[in-house]
Amino acid sequence: MIRAYAAFEQGAELQPFEYDPGELQACEVEIDVLYSGICHSDLSMIDNEWGISRYPLVPGHEIVGRIAKLGEKVRHFSPGELVGLGWHAGFCKECSLCCSGDHNLCASAQATIVGHYGGFAEKVRAQADSVVAIPDGLDVESAGPLFCGGITVFNPLVQFDVKPTDKVAVIGIGGLGHIALQFLNAWGCEVTAFTSSEVKRNEALQLGAHHALNSRDLSEVASASGQFDLIISTVNVKLDWNLFLSTLAPKGRLHFVGATLEPLDIGVFSLIGGQRSISGSPVGSPATIARMLDFARLHNIKPVVEKYKLADVNSALARLRSGKAHYRIVLER
Amino acid sequence: MIRAYAAFEQGAELQPFEYDPGELQACEVEIDVLYSGICHSDLSMIDNEWGISRYPLVPGHEIVGRIAKLGEKVRHFSPGELVGLGWHAGFCKECSLCCSGDHNLCASAQATIVGHYGGFAEKVRAQADSVVAIPDGLDVESAGPLFCGGITVFNPLVQFDVKPTDKVAVIGIGGLGHIALQFLNAWGCEVTAFTSSEVKRNEALQLGAHHALNSRDLSEVASASGQFDLIISTVNVKLDWNLFLSTLAPKGRLHFVGATLEPLDIGVFSLIGGQRSISGSPVGSPATIARMLDFARLHNIKPVVEKYKLADVNSALARLRSGKAHYRIVLER
Repeated sequence: MIRAYAAFEQGAELQPFEYDPGELQACEVEIDVLYSGICHSDLSMIDNEWGISRYPLVPGHEIVGRIAKLGEKVRHFSPGELVGLGWHAGFCKECSLCCSGDHNLCASAQATIVGHYGGFAEKVRAQADSVVAIPDGLDVESAGPLFCGGITVFNPLVQFDVKPTDKVAVIGIGGLGHIALQFLNAWGCEVTAFTSSEVKRNEALQLGAHHALNSRDLSEVASASGQFDLIISTVNVKLDWNLFLSTLAPKGRLHFVGATLEPLDIGVFSLIGGQRSISGSPVGSPATIARMLDFARLHNIKPVVEKYKLADVNSALARLRSGKAHYRIVLER
Repeated sequence: MIRAYAAFEQGAELQPFEYDPGELQACEVEIDVLYSGICHSDLSMIDNEWGISRYPLVPGHEIVGRIAKLGEKVRHFSPGELVGLGWHAGFCKECSLCCSGDHNLCASAQATIVGHYGGFAEKVRAQADSVVAIPDGLDVESAGPLFCGGITVFNPLVQFDVKPTDKVAVIGIGGLGHIALQFLNAWGCEVTAFTSSEVKRNEALQLGAHHALNSRDLSEVASASGQFDLIISTVNVKLDWNLFLSTLAPKGRLHFVGATLEPLDIGVFSLIGGQRSISGSPVGSPATIARMLDFARLHNIKPVVEKYKLADVNSALARLRSGKAHYRIVLER
């Protein structure tokens, strides 16, 4: 039996929950969970915002732990090895996307917390291919959030071949944005933070931004007209997207990793005139996660985390709901 | 004096007009116009739809002719040489875009028919750098439309590195779309035409499409779910863009070269889930026009044109306004 914390119905507080994981499959590993980050999508899943939740629901998809058991066909991990697990706990490994290294876009991928028990637990299981080794020297306590929040902002830099000479802006300096600033600074880019918080403006500069602008001050946004090669939006609120489009340089891209439910209302002429793009992307493949971890270790990039004991998971979730988490919460077993 | 046809006020029929072009500048050429295609944006400019028209307005920016005079610094053309001129008649040649080969995105570019007299005339002048030689063997009578309609649909293939193994759809089989089908077929792609016209469905197959679907039949569009790496939209009417987004494969791109005035109303989740992009672009640089002409010559790609005498320009414009042009109109001097 595996002891975990689960929501038993939509929006409920988590309660202790035990489940029998059954026999370990040949391609699976079992991980002793050490740390588990809390992502905003854990809340979305508890609340069934996307209509795909199944209960009892064990959240947790920013998992750091040690390999406890190996399926008989798993060769590339050793017992006790430090590993991480993110949004995906398995892939079909047969579709053209998996075969091209784009596992994160696999339509049959197994999400860690959708019809599968996640990391708010003493143990978690996953297909070995979805688990990534943590390189020596990476800060273990803060590594969890890299596996969802981190890869979500790192992946676009790889996918769209962002250049160190590019000017890049990040909208929203929270759980994702504060990691994005660190990656972009180390990537060599000139980095601008857009935030509506005065406190975060100063912190953004410490985290790697070269400039910080108020995302709610239309004249301040407009002052950046035509500047950015890439804007990464991490927010889930509606902003004046056409105004932000006007801050893109020709050939620039406005990229969404945070989702607003309202449609985007984009004017076509502002795309055509400067050959601009709008796009979005979800997390990243295991191979890209591995590249990210090496990059984070080399450049000493760390999510800023608040730690809670796993037993205090409901206090931690309440803290995240309050919007005051600074910047990411990690549960410690 | 140069004899031309001009609109003297918004929406007016064209009338004979003579102007003094002044002294030929050192970097300019003067072209004896042989053929001049009519583009929908000539109508937009006559009607001042974009608020940038100046009258008398001489339309015409799909020009084929022979070099008549060379400015003293022009070395790369000879008198009598066959050349073409498109939307741009000059560039700043100093900005980072011009210096990077992206002249078509130069903010100071001189449009051929904005504050400059265009090709519905016996002669036209342009900065030599904006003029492109027509390779031997290209069909001269139908070449004009390549210089605006053609390059507008060819340029995205170059800009976004479209692969011959890609599946590409074209929405709208008109002046631009019917050329796009030919380019894409020669590019090696599997080509789908979306059109609402039964007649055009059959013609699309003859022009190079492998499949033709009804763009107004929602179930027929939906049947293409998840297929396309690229969709090029040439239409200027509002369609169900989220439905078309759902026909993109993961990493696919919905690209606009036709502009609707209504905003796009795009759902963010459909971008994020499959790492999809939306974008737009205008015409292309002279270097890309030259590549296009070589490609068109090699593959015998020709705009399908109706010919009118220049003196019958008002009949030709009325024909274009009727929506019945098949597929592009060329004025012959």
